[in-house]
Amino acid sequence: MKKGVDMMKIEEVKAGDLKPKEFIEQKIREMSAAVGKGFAINALSGGVDSSAVTMLGHKALGDRLKTYFVDNGIMREGEPAGIVALFANLGVKVEIVDAQDEFFRALKGIADPEKKREAVTQTFYKDVFGKLVRKSGAKYLLQGTILTDVDETVAGIKRQHNVFEQLGIDPQEAFGYKILEPLVQLRKDGVRKVAAALGLPESVYNRMPFPGPALAARVIGEVTPEKIKVVRKATVIMEEELASAKPFQCMAILHQDRVTGIRDGKRDFGLQIEVRCWDSVDARTAKPTRLPYDTLERLAKRMVTEVPGVVSVTYNITTKPPVTMEAV
Amino acid sequence: MKKGVDMMKIEEVKAGDLKPKEFIEQKIREMSAAVGKGFAINALSGGVDSSAVTMLGHKALGDRLKTYFVDNGIMREGEPAGIVALFANLGVKVEIVDAQDEFFRALKGIADPEKKREAVTQTFYKDVFGKLVRKSGAKYLLQGTILTDVDETVAGIKRQHNVFEQLGIDPQEAFGYKILEPLVQLRKDGVRKVAAALGLPESVYNRMPFPGPALAARVIGEVTPEKIKVVRKATVIMEEELASAKPFQCMAILHQDRVTGIRDGKRDFGLQIEVRCWDSVDARTAKPTRLPYDTLERLAKRMVTEVPGVVSVTYNITTKPPVTMEAV
Repeated sequence: MKKGVDMMKIEEVKAGDLKPKEFIEQKIREMSAAVGKGFAINALSGGVDSSAVTMLGHKALGDRLKTYFVDNGIMREGEPAGIVALFANLGVKVEIVDAQDEFFRALKGIADPEKKREAVTQTFYKDVFGKLVRKSGAKYLLQGTILTDVDETVAGIKRQHNVFEQLGIDPQEAFGYKILEPLVQLRKDGVRKVAAALGLPESVYNRMPFPGPALAARVIGEVTPEKIKVVRKATVIMEEELASAKPFQCMAILHQDRVTGIRDGKRDFGLQIEVRCWDSVDARTAKPTRLPYDTLERLAKRMVTEVPGVVSVTYNITTKPPVTMEAV
Repeated sequence: MKKGVDMMKIEEVKAGDLKPKEFIEQKIREMSAAVGKGFAINALSGGVDSSAVTMLGHKALGDRLKTYFVDNGIMREGEPAGIVALFANLGVKVEIVDAQDEFFRALKGIADPEKKREAVTQTFYKDVFGKLVRKSGAKYLLQGTILTDVDETVAGIKRQHNVFEQLGIDPQEAFGYKILEPLVQLRKDGVRKVAAALGLPESVYNRMPFPGPALAARVIGEVTPEKIKVVRKATVIMEEELASAKPFQCMAILHQDRVTGIRDGKRDFGLQIEVRCWDSVDARTAKPTRLPYDTLERLAKRMVTEVPGVVSVTYNITTKPPVTMEAV
């Protein structure tokens, strides 16, 4: 991990000082100028960052931006189709790339969280998106990096994203490639304002963060299609039950540890789901949402009833720091 | 696991119908008659069941009952000395047996919860208490079995306690041995009434259940002296913070799963403690106590601050069933 990344070049725009329309116009001008008559490519995950970048990019470049949605098999219920439909309504064409098998193959046998993230990242960049980039001949990549990502890279909390290497592209050979990161001066609250001003619906601009490794980051230990099925089902229930609380971010995590339960009077050594629901403004610090016990108990009841194998549900009561929002 | 244990012989005495003084007198008469001029032995764990049995036994048999406290190394902070002092105040002499090394040796490398319980049970009965019994020449054993234990044995939730085999005593050779279980008609609420009527202090008769495997049942995965240290410290904090809530039972559980945290701005892949706090009358069913969020947050804050390595704390929100009160 490289230290000493030069952060001096990035001038933070605080959400309070942000004028979304002017910001958008400025970024459109910058991107148009940078890409010129060339064309660009980006990957949409459906999160607020990549959604805002996709809209910005299409406003700046129109059809000269090609947007892909990579279905990695570790998405939430109905995610790929839902996001493509949403952007189609906004006049933006997004192409789905089915890469489920590649991702599950890459995740097989990996329990270490960092190696798991690495496998998802590598598969995405090298095996899937890297191929698309090379095939497309695009020389510009749009990325939804925000200032918090940069902070965490510098602090060594997350791995640094050296995008060229990740794409399997030799920097020598890749001369001319350029990464555009139009949101890098903003934090999450600023991005939400920009996303709203770009005409994205509330379901997107107020969308909870759901980082790249997606449900793979919601499974402690090895990720398998079976475990993804469990945590996907738990996630649907959690999102239904916590929607009205409008949390900054919430998640259901499938533990690797098993705990003792009773089913029909018999011992059942079963699964445990941990629920986290965060109050936060900018993701740098967070507190557990003080959900009513009625909600917590209904949530637990539905999970042990509707998700096969689950016998226990917990709620995280720690602040960030020292815990991070994601468990894995 | 044997099925079809004859439960017909056990006539339940419900707490509501229990007349503690008459019950005590009857049990004293029965034990005196059974033991006659012989002598008996029992092991005190400090829980309400074994404390009540110890008092009953001493009232019935006086010095002809020899009571041992086995220090297995997996007890709570200050437990062995505290309990011996408490009984000394009541005029009952209890001998501490230091068996910490035996237990940690037996637990080494075992992650499976049932094998772990088995190791604790076997070490207790065969290696430690079994030797004491054989050396003492006592022909009578007092045990704190209650009706819920019998139910759970029959249901296959816990393993059946075939005490003779557990003691490493051949039933043939052991002819004449007798197990006395004076509390077997009662459930926990009844035992508490009897314990109070026996003159035990409130700290004992309202003591939360803390089963045999003790802190070993509060560690998911392999039990080591280091992990016991962590969970012991977390247990002290939990008991201090939850004392005023007067829960039926509460516990801090050290998970084997590690989760990501941040310390001093750097990634810290750390430990997770799960807190459980149960509302229950008789342990057959239970609900999570609706602890105030102020309490939960203070608890979490203290654990991540005071217990080295802990970055995350959760609170269990499931009911029994399907979860059991203990995790392991």
